[in-house]
Amino acid sequence: MKLDAASMAASSNEQRNRALENAAEKLRAHAAEVFAENEKDLAAATEAGIAPAVMKRLKFNEDKLNDVLAGIRQLVSLPDPLGKVSLARELDEGLRLYRVSCPIGVIGVIFEARPDALVQISTLCIKSGNCAILKGGKETTYTNRALFRLIHEAVTEAGLPENALLQAEQHSEIDELLSCDRDVDLLIPRGSNAFVQYIMNNTKIPVMGHADGICHIYVDKAADFGKAVPIIVDAKTQYTAACNAVETLLVNREIAGEFLPLLAEALKAEHVRLLGTREVREIIDVTEITEDEFREYLDLAVSVKLVKDVDEAVSHINRFGSHHTDSIITEDRETALKFMQMVDSAGVYQNCSTRFADGFRYGFGAEVGISTGKIHARGPVGLEGLVTYKYKLFGDGHIVGDYAAGRRQFHFRDLEKDADRD
Amino acid sequence: MKLDAASMAASSNEQRNRALENAAEKLRAHAAEVFAENEKDLAAATEAGIAPAVMKRLKFNEDKLNDVLAGIRQLVSLPDPLGKVSLARELDEGLRLYRVSCPIGVIGVIFEARPDALVQISTLCIKSGNCAILKGGKETTYTNRALFRLIHEAVTEAGLPENALLQAEQHSEIDELLSCDRDVDLLIPRGSNAFVQYIMNNTKIPVMGHADGICHIYVDKAADFGKAVPIIVDAKTQYTAACNAVETLLVNREIAGEFLPLLAEALKAEHVRLLGTREVREIIDVTEITEDEFREYLDLAVSVKLVKDVDEAVSHINRFGSHHTDSIITEDRETALKFMQMVDSAGVYQNCSTRFADGFRYGFGAEVGISTGKIHARGPVGLEGLVTYKYKLFGDGHIVGDYAAGRRQFHFRDLEKDADRD
Repeated sequence: MKLDAASMAASSNEQRNRALENAAEKLRAHAAEVFAENEKDLAAATEAGIAPAVMKRLKFNEDKLNDVLAGIRQLVSLPDPLGKVSLARELDEGLRLYRVSCPIGVIGVIFEARPDALVQISTLCIKSGNCAILKGGKETTYTNRALFRLIHEAVTEAGLPENALLQAEQHSEIDELLSCDRDVDLLIPRGSNAFVQYIMNNTKIPVMGHADGICHIYVDKAADFGKAVPIIVDAKTQYTAACNAVETLLVNREIAGEFLPLLAEALKAEHVRLLGTREVREIIDVTEITEDEFREYLDLAVSVKLVKDVDEAVSHINRFGSHHTDSIITEDRETALKFMQMVDSAGVYQNCSTRFADGFRYGFGAEVGISTGKIHARGPVGLEGLVTYKYKLFGDGHIVGDYAAGRRQFHFRDLEKDADRD
Repeated sequence: MKLDAASMAASSNEQRNRALENAAEKLRAHAAEVFAENEKDLAAATEAGIAPAVMKRLKFNEDKLNDVLAGIRQLVSLPDPLGKVSLARELDEGLRLYRVSCPIGVIGVIFEARPDALVQISTLCIKSGNCAILKGGKETTYTNRALFRLIHEAVTEAGLPENALLQAEQHSEIDELLSCDRDVDLLIPRGSNAFVQYIMNNTKIPVMGHADGICHIYVDKAADFGKAVPIIVDAKTQYTAACNAVETLLVNREIAGEFLPLLAEALKAEHVRLLGTREVREIIDVTEITEDEFREYLDLAVSVKLVKDVDEAVSHINRFGSHHTDSIITEDRETALKFMQMVDSAGVYQNCSTRFADGFRYGFGAEVGISTGKIHARGPVGLEGLVTYKYKLFGDGHIVGDYAAGRRQFHFRDLEKDADRD
């Protein structure tokens, strides 16, 4: 089935908002049915002996419903991301160029477990005028089917094309989707690291997201320990399963003797397991490992290593990190700026917790996800990550031959951006 | 060998401009040596029986030198693409977020034949603070080596890192480069369609460029024939080898009887071979082919097909086109706007030649290339296609736990963009 990206690109903001409002109404009106379908999934999961942590993510209840409804209301209130003019220029008399934002086209969304992700991402695609192919995890087949049906009805009743949204249900369809590089413009995977890594390694379609999040904090010799210790405790323990939790601490050798005992005491009080290089073990009690064994724990554990200076910290981060978010603790402005210029990550911080890397905390509202890629969108990505642009050129019989022969000249005059003829 | 992207990211605009000025001086001072090396390549090419058209592209003479020197001078005069602040926001008292442009990192440049491309792209990378791995065609080994040596000297003498530029000379190194998805952030191929297609199909690294350029012109029933005919002649004949030359004409069935004879007469006067569907052959003299046989000719030949309306034209273009540049000829504003919204191409034009799709004609100055991808940069790409951004967050001991517990609240206050502390 071919998705109707061209019609979606021509839809109005009013139609797209109406589809979102319809979706919110339908989800509210048919909540009991959705919850009943979710019970079927939960029962099957219980029978299959699914782990309690996963069970929690499978659940779609009143709380989750309220969250997605709040998200939809917020989306409706956002300005239209399409038709924004970022360049308006008269090339010559009667020849006007506009660079205008437009949908990317067809977004493939592949997610594990969480049925609320289906609602969240499909509504982001609707708002941004994209078509979406949605493939959820088999653990929530019943819930996904019920949610998809309601959203699809909402879309068609708003006059948007029947083929704006497509649901893929078979597991084999993941590989099929990954091979559709002619028809799918962007993939957004949501799930475990291994899952995202698999997607990234098995497709030619651009992937927006992140596999691992190996975030670092470098404690400089000019660090204020009174800031360093609480920041590290926060970054490690506030939510250990998050991709922006800190996984590796780099400590300047000059202050290690004084700082590490303070740090160890604070982390041990929070039951954080410490691992570190031999040099670290000579100062505090850690499980000795080499830097090649440092990894993403997503748990109450952290790796520690000593470095000579900010340059060595930068080298370590760029080599072993995942280009997500890294922080320096220092009172020295020059050192901080150097760190922030040289560390090749989406987020580079001074004197604050890596846990701030999040669309909500950046004040972005609706979040598509966090991207560690450097092409297109980077870091926490809002609706703008789902749009691209095209150049519209309005002429009146203009031909290049006239300019090549010198009969006419370009004059390149910038126009008011709101003067778009579109 | 590891490229020193971190040091390049920390370089100043002055250093990068000095490197460019050094390069221009050295190229001028050592022109005779470079031309002599080029003579060796040309002699080898003559001996190997290389086609005259290719020979022309291998040549590096006074004219080509003057072109690249003019390009370098223009690059020096452009503002620094790095350090531009596109978002500045105080999240809370003392917690300030900036989104700042920065280099992408390491750019792999793979080009066939033209040695001037080596100078052009390496200087664009220098200006934008990127490291570059340059792999030229074996036909110009001597010329490339001479050019690279001069540019590399210019870079190091300006105080930029030794490892900012790397030259790859072995053919086997192409496949090695394509597999370096951990170390290379973006590939820019320059060469034939088959060459670019090979690159795109054999790497996980994002590729910026275009393989084919199957551009369309749709002649609507509300077309002014006095504009349509010269535009089509220009788009087809002004420079047939260009990717933005028109390859397929779609003509509204209602006007075909009247329009096609006019068109055929004009194109035949320019020695353009006409190919078309059976329906077209019933009106004018064309070689009959089916729409599946339409292709990119890059020559004095064009395919013609009749369509019912703008919707059918859009469907054909989105299915058979290459998302490059497509034009509608119509006096009907609504039809034009619909075409421009629904055609999924980097350039969508009304009443002008597809040949306008070009960075110089858009007034962009230095051009990296034309991209038909929809992620990152699209259409003619200037320096901005070689930069990304990072988020810099400056705090003073801020932790997420305080906000999660409600002890502190974000206030999201936009700051002056020039107030960047960086």
